[in-house]
Amino acid sequence: MWKPDRRSSTPIYLQIADRLQHLIAEGEYSPGSPLPSERKLAELFDVNRSTIVQAYTELRAHGLIESRPGSKTRVSLHQGRDQGALPPEWHRYAENGVFLPNVPFLRHIREALAQNPSIIDFASGKLSLNLSPVQEINEIMRNCVYQPEPENDSLLGFPPLRRALAAFLQKYRGINVSPDSILITSGSQQALYLITQCLLSPGDAVAVEAPSYTLSLSMFQSAGLRMYRLPVDEYGVRPEGLRTLQKKYRIRMLFVNPNFQNPTGTLLHEERKKLLLETAGKLRLPIVEDDQFSLTAYGLDSPPPLKAETDAVSTLYIGSFSKIAASGLRIGWIVAPASVIRRLSDARRQMDLGFSVIPQQIAAKFMASQYFDPHMDRLRRELILKRDTTAEALRKHLGDLVEFTVPQGGLHLWCRILPEVSDSRLLDEALRQRVAFVPGSVYGSGPGYMRLTYARPNAEDIEPGISRLAAAVRTAVRAAAE
Amino acid sequence: MWKPDRRSSTPIYLQIADRLQHLIAEGEYSPGSPLPSERKLAELFDVNRSTIVQAYTELRAHGLIESRPGSKTRVSLHQGRDQGALPPEWHRYAENGVFLPNVPFLRHIREALAQNPSIIDFASGKLSLNLSPVQEINEIMRNCVYQPEPENDSLLGFPPLRRALAAFLQKYRGINVSPDSILITSGSQQALYLITQCLLSPGDAVAVEAPSYTLSLSMFQSAGLRMYRLPVDEYGVRPEGLRTLQKKYRIRMLFVNPNFQNPTGTLLHEERKKLLLETAGKLRLPIVEDDQFSLTAYGLDSPPPLKAETDAVSTLYIGSFSKIAASGLRIGWIVAPASVIRRLSDARRQMDLGFSVIPQQIAAKFMASQYFDPHMDRLRRELILKRDTTAEALRKHLGDLVEFTVPQGGLHLWCRILPEVSDSRLLDEALRQRVAFVPGSVYGSGPGYMRLTYARPNAEDIEPGISRLAAAVRTAVRAAAE
Ligand SMILES: Cc1ncc(COP(=O)(O)O)c(C=O)c1O
Ligand SMILES: Cc1ncc(COP(=O)(O)O)c(C=O)c1O
Repeated sequence: MWKPDRRSSTPIYLQIADRLQHLIAEGEYSPGSPLPSERKLAELFDVNRSTIVQAYTELRAHGLIESRPGSKTRVSLHQGRDQGALPPEWHRYAENGVFLPNVPFLRHIREALAQNPSIIDFASGKLSLNLSPVQEINEIMRNCVYQPEPENDSLLGFPPLRRALAAFLQKYRGINVSPDSILITSGSQQALYLITQCLLSPGDAVAVEAPSYTLSLSMFQSAGLRMYRLPVDEYGVRPEGLRTLQKKYRIRMLFVNPNFQNPTGTLLHEERKKLLLETAGKLRLPIVEDDQFSLTAYGLDSPPPLKAETDAVSTLYIGSFSKIAASGLRIGWIVAPASVIRRLSDARRQMDLGFSVIPQQIAAKFMASQYFDPHMDRLRRELILKRDTTAEALRKHLGDLVEFTVPQGGLHLWCRILPEVSDSRLLDEALRQRVAFVPGSVYGSGPGYMRLTYARPNAEDIEPGISRLAAAVRTAVRAAAE
Repeated sequence: MWKPDRRSSTPIYLQIADRLQHLIAEGEYSPGSPLPSERKLAELFDVNRSTIVQAYTELRAHGLIESRPGSKTRVSLHQGRDQGALPPEWHRYAENGVFLPNVPFLRHIREALAQNPSIIDFASGKLSLNLSPVQEINEIMRNCVYQPEPENDSLLGFPPLRRALAAFLQKYRGINVSPDSILITSGSQQALYLITQCLLSPGDAVAVEAPSYTLSLSMFQSAGLRMYRLPVDEYGVRPEGLRTLQKKYRIRMLFVNPNFQNPTGTLLHEERKKLLLETAGKLRLPIVEDDQFSLTAYGLDSPPPLKAETDAVSTLYIGSFSKIAASGLRIGWIVAPASVIRRLSDARRQMDLGFSVIPQQIAAKFMASQYFDPHMDRLRRELILKRDTTAEALRKHLGDLVEFTVPQGGLHLWCRILPEVSDSRLLDEALRQRVAFVPGSVYGSGPGYMRLTYARPNAEDIEPGISRLAAAVRTAVRAAAE
């Protein structure tokens, strides 16, 4: 028997409306036939009657059902027509297209977090609210003047932002490019999407880090790409296998996140960077370098990007503001040769026609403002504190059961559980204890790994959070041993 | 011989850098070999030497070439490697993927407009700057507070905006929906994109109006859809052929822009709306209703959307702020059944991960503010004025050569040239006369049609603009007759 899912973020009444629509579309209730009474349905689905009233209102708004005063609610007849008409089979349509649904684990965590604010969140891969420069952004916004045109009318993005970015990349990342080699995107997610959609074709083979960033994995699958994995260890991705992979599967592109990788937090070793560039150069293989986290480096200097190497001709470079300032601005960028920029910007136009000017104005100003350096300093200090608190709490509460390398930058800590556990069992147990993490298998690793985004919870919640997590781990380990 | 394109919006130096990169990639200049001197190249390409210096700087930044003091500029050798390495063949990559390039006519017009601000623009399908509520938006922005979370964290878009939209759709469009049936998109362009990507599969057949909105046409082609056309006359699209088309080609979806259509400006007749809904209902065929222009109606009432009909169960409804307020906000929406919303929002996440909050905050406030109705009143008044000026000028300067119906809403006037002309000849001539329009063939019509977006030029430029256009038409007609 179908029941509404109380842990879903979709309101119950909509789940019910959806279910009824499905039954109507399937012919379970035919045009003109009466529907069960509100009371009956409320019983059936184990909800309040008011929820059924809401669901019926929704269906009525969509013209699926009709009620007349004093008579039962019925499936619409579409009066005045010779034959009964039915709505399109929406749920069938929703199964079309090339997009695969996102990872169920992530949906589950997301829904749990939406449902229960007391869950301590080590799962969402982003900064806690108080690490975002909210006041600074508000200060800048107050002084922003919305000027729709003509400067913003470029297919590549708001020209002042691209100029500010060229200066930024030069100053902070040692990358030397003209503003016309930069395309603005809705976060680096869109940059990745554009690359897979415009520079590759379904069936193409790509090499990815194992483990690596989930949403790129689902996106690659949706794009019909064949993925081959290069293992990541504590010095980052291992480049030795690249040549063999390439020869064997005709790899057409390599995706890496070299500095403080998501999810492992590792920094790609200098020697490996050299070898990677060298191999890619010889194979004429494009490297997509996803450089999200470098500026968070806890040491003195940010590690250089591959793109900054003097001969980094193989690199498409992408970055964004999301992990160092405000993901709500949705400002990302891609640095690429002119032919690639042209192609991507042309396609981008078909997808969403253009850019929202205001976030671009704000980003340009923030980047060049006196706020930027102090913000980054504060961010680094807070991240170090959070990392230390997390590592300490892990040692204290779980020292005998886990293994991890202390990250030197980024937002994430990658933690291996030594005894055997079931990922889904552990996640369920953790959510029951009101703490969230992401199981490593989501990123393509074997079982028994957790990604802990220590940047996300508030500092004072970290120790209690890890303590809850420890309880969950112990329960799951015990269960696995039984 | 290749030369830079001076009418292109790509800077000359980048065109040259691109060309050289191409030649290097093709092996024309091999690794380590010297490149022509700056002076020599300047002569060859007929540009200033400083332009070549810029192009070389660009290539050097990308590591493609190297210069040492006192010696010639050379193609990079990638020293320290046993074999010469080459950059990836970027231009080949840029030919991949499913996106077809956008229409050349449009690119050409775009570049001309960017190049020469004295061109009077009847081509860009949007409002003139002074019709956008820029001051109102600035006023609202000054009072906006950027609040990253948690309210904005919905996969469907900023909840307050969805609530404001539900009220807006009820009040202005007679559409009764809950906020959870609304997905926010980056303009209606993204709504169309999501529909084609998620609800249809390559090879599926769709029915479209002929003529119809260009960027949707290229997008449909890129998505691998087969398009079948339903002709539009002065009462809008003709629904009679739908059933036959459907039976013959298994049409899976119908796309219409019923009220003040782009490009023809026509309003779909009430009887036809009924017939369309009836036919679609019987066939269980989804109609995608693109409702951009209704609120501009010059008469007393906005024509109702298909979606407002009591039995509009077949309709996916999309709209945006672009044509009635500010396209720079990039705020669009789609109203759909729950199963469809779920599918689209899930896929959207893979494309760009989320929403920029600020434009959504602004749109929500603007929509519900005391600014909205006065803005719409002013917009309508100004559009009527511009339409009248355009129609009068056409009659005066071209009365003997053209035929058109005076639109009752929207931004566009569709104009047929009676004698034979060549579209490309006419466009070239018009641009030479410093006036721009879009040839009808871009929208899939036969030759000899022009779309004139009277909303776009400033009011005082309309009469001189049409006078220039008249000169161009007469020249092109004469040329065709010779
Ligand atoms: C490695 C990596 N790349 C890209 C992204 C996408 O982020 P955004 O689109 O916000 O820039 C993320 C977000 O988690 C990430 O971790
Ligand atoms: C009929 C129609 N639909 C959709 C769009 C896309 O506009 P936007 O994405 O700005 O809402 C346009 C823009 O010209 C249009 O004319």
